[in-house]
Amino acid sequence: MLDFEFYNPTRIVFGRGTISRLDMLIPPSARLLVLFGGKSARKTGTLAEVKAALGHREVQEFGGIEPNPSYEALIKAVEQVRREKLDFLLAVGGGSVIDGTKFVAAAVEFDGDPWTILETHGSNVTSAMPFASVLTLPATGSEMNNGAVITRKATTSKLVFRNPHTFPLFSILDPTKTYTLPARQIANGVADAFTHIIEQYLTYPVEARVQDRFAEGLLQTLIEIGPQTIANPEDYDLRTNLVWTATLALNGLIGAGVPQDWATHMIGHELTARYDIDHARTLAVILPSLLRERREAKRAKLLQYAERVWQITGGGDDERIEAAIARTEIFLESLGIKTRMADYGVRADAIDGLVGQLKAHGMTALGERRDITPDISRRILEASL
Amino acid sequence: MLDFEFYNPTRIVFGRGTISRLDMLIPPSARLLVLFGGKSARKTGTLAEVKAALGHREVQEFGGIEPNPSYEALIKAVEQVRREKLDFLLAVGGGSVIDGTKFVAAAVEFDGDPWTILETHGSNVTSAMPFASVLTLPATGSEMNNGAVITRKATTSKLVFRNPHTFPLFSILDPTKTYTLPARQIANGVADAFTHIIEQYLTYPVEARVQDRFAEGLLQTLIEIGPQTIANPEDYDLRTNLVWTATLALNGLIGAGVPQDWATHMIGHELTARYDIDHARTLAVILPSLLRERREAKRAKLLQYAERVWQITGGGDDERIEAAIARTEIFLESLGIKTRMADYGVRADAIDGLVGQLKAHGMTALGERRDITPDISRRILEASL
Repeated sequence: MLDFEFYNPTRIVFGRGTISRLDMLIPPSARLLVLFGGKSARKTGTLAEVKAALGHREVQEFGGIEPNPSYEALIKAVEQVRREKLDFLLAVGGGSVIDGTKFVAAAVEFDGDPWTILETHGSNVTSAMPFASVLTLPATGSEMNNGAVITRKATTSKLVFRNPHTFPLFSILDPTKTYTLPARQIANGVADAFTHIIEQYLTYPVEARVQDRFAEGLLQTLIEIGPQTIANPEDYDLRTNLVWTATLALNGLIGAGVPQDWATHMIGHELTARYDIDHARTLAVILPSLLRERREAKRAKLLQYAERVWQITGGGDDERIEAAIARTEIFLESLGIKTRMADYGVRADAIDGLVGQLKAHGMTALGERRDITPDISRRILEASL
Repeated sequence: MLDFEFYNPTRIVFGRGTISRLDMLIPPSARLLVLFGGKSARKTGTLAEVKAALGHREVQEFGGIEPNPSYEALIKAVEQVRREKLDFLLAVGGGSVIDGTKFVAAAVEFDGDPWTILETHGSNVTSAMPFASVLTLPATGSEMNNGAVITRKATTSKLVFRNPHTFPLFSILDPTKTYTLPARQIANGVADAFTHIIEQYLTYPVEARVQDRFAEGLLQTLIEIGPQTIANPEDYDLRTNLVWTATLALNGLIGAGVPQDWATHMIGHELTARYDIDHARTLAVILPSLLRERREAKRAKLLQYAERVWQITGGGDDERIEAAIARTEIFLESLGIKTRMADYGVRADAIDGLVGQLKAHGMTALGERRDITPDISRRILEASL
């Protein structure tokens, strides 16, 4: 096991009807900004339920946070908080809204150009105002971690920041609030969480038995419930397991003390940036090809994955590895997610541009051993066509 | 899945050489009380290493905390902290020292009779002074939870308290600091952690797939490494997995959203109180008999335990259940722990007294459904002879 630090102070309040607990969790004198995305928070009644739970507290709204939250929009929320002397942020939404709220929380208290928070990946943040979340979309795990991805439209920069001060104080996870999500978004959430787990698990062995078994348990759970919860959106048991799995997939626990990959995410980001393909779908396109390309570097863990997650025990090593990757593809397709670039209209002539973007963004040494060069990324992209 | 709250703000600092990080983790101006148990903290050099890491900070000592930490001794530490105006507590030891430190942290700030902290099980605690731990014995999980068991010798009362303010700020887990522990203590730690997991897992199904798989992963890890780490005390990989498993066995995670049993602990406590048998050994005596006695109430989870933890798939339901319980006994014996009351010199004539104690302590409705009556506890004890 590698050395690690684990710290995660976010309180999780999980179950039906838990939005009403906001009244206990937020100071009575709080002056709140409630942040949300598009129209669904209002249409589903979740926003109204949140405001009812907040009772007589001063509440202002900031809507319209985009799927890839933009610096340009969030800076307006920062101005509103300062101007109106608000002192508590409440995100109502999925990963984008929560990510955006993290940035606002840090930027309000930041003395200087807030863009430098992103340029330094959060290392220059020394405080953040209190914030919390009401989760409506299980996928990114942002509800129980301190990371955020923010896009600056003007320069098409997409940067990650994290800081010990940017954990949500609490997150309310009421699985019934996810029932109205379209099947496409649930499928994306399953694929996103699945890939988060794989990126922290399918590397090389370091005798981290607990982390391996936790990751395998989360993967097996997603394999069991993924297609089922899409087919039965109001099955409470299925949905609770999806929500809790997606949270645990990226709260720091399974990644503590192990190598981490994240190359699938980095290559996938370029597909989103250039072709506006849903984040989760880019992961489903890249992951199988990446695993095949890296089968030697990942051999020991691929064999473990085959046996423990897919119960594949017959055949030689290479056969078992290929069978596990094929099962991964079939699983992603069973969610209704296409796994080839051609399915999204991206053809061979796109690859030069995508590799160029990777280079331009400094993504020239990816993976758990930092040995995925642009040439290897090119081969992965070619194999994903 | 049942509704739950999960909150655990303790920072874990894990790995070789992490005691040196104390200098970064504790304010330079802190005035510390370092609490520890018997002579081993000094003899092994861990105490000296801690004091060296603390540098020029004001450091006082409070040694001699017993295996079942006593109210009478801890009150002296409370007086020392107040008299000497100390402001940070550092536990160096295992569960007993950390439990005792939690009580001191709460009692120093408590206005009133500190015994009422235990009488109210911690519900009257509104603050606690900052404290942290350097773990030297993997077993109880106290290093990453907010609970403590304190004994008042004068009245032989053994009470549990917990409170949101009594989480350690941080805990240093350096597996190499456990190398010098006697095999008996490591065996006890494995059995204690194993039973903590079982008490939160082997109840009845509530569709908590993640919690089940995490519990199963921790159990499988202990089964793999338990006898090995006793035989190879300086194998770093084995010991790291024991330390991290014991911490995760009782940090709230696997118990969130599921029923919990704890009857084995409650019945075992009476064996410790009356016959001074090691806590973990009383668990090893009671657990198999309890599982047999409760096989109908626990049928579904026992079958799951047999299949997933022990890979028992042949034979009828009852055969598989009995095989899983028998394997559990064999595992505990493989640690060098005897699993019959007779092995500890406790015979049939003791049972009336033990059942009387359970009644006197209000332990008349135990288990995940609160349906283990004193008569059922008697049958469990008889089956454990």
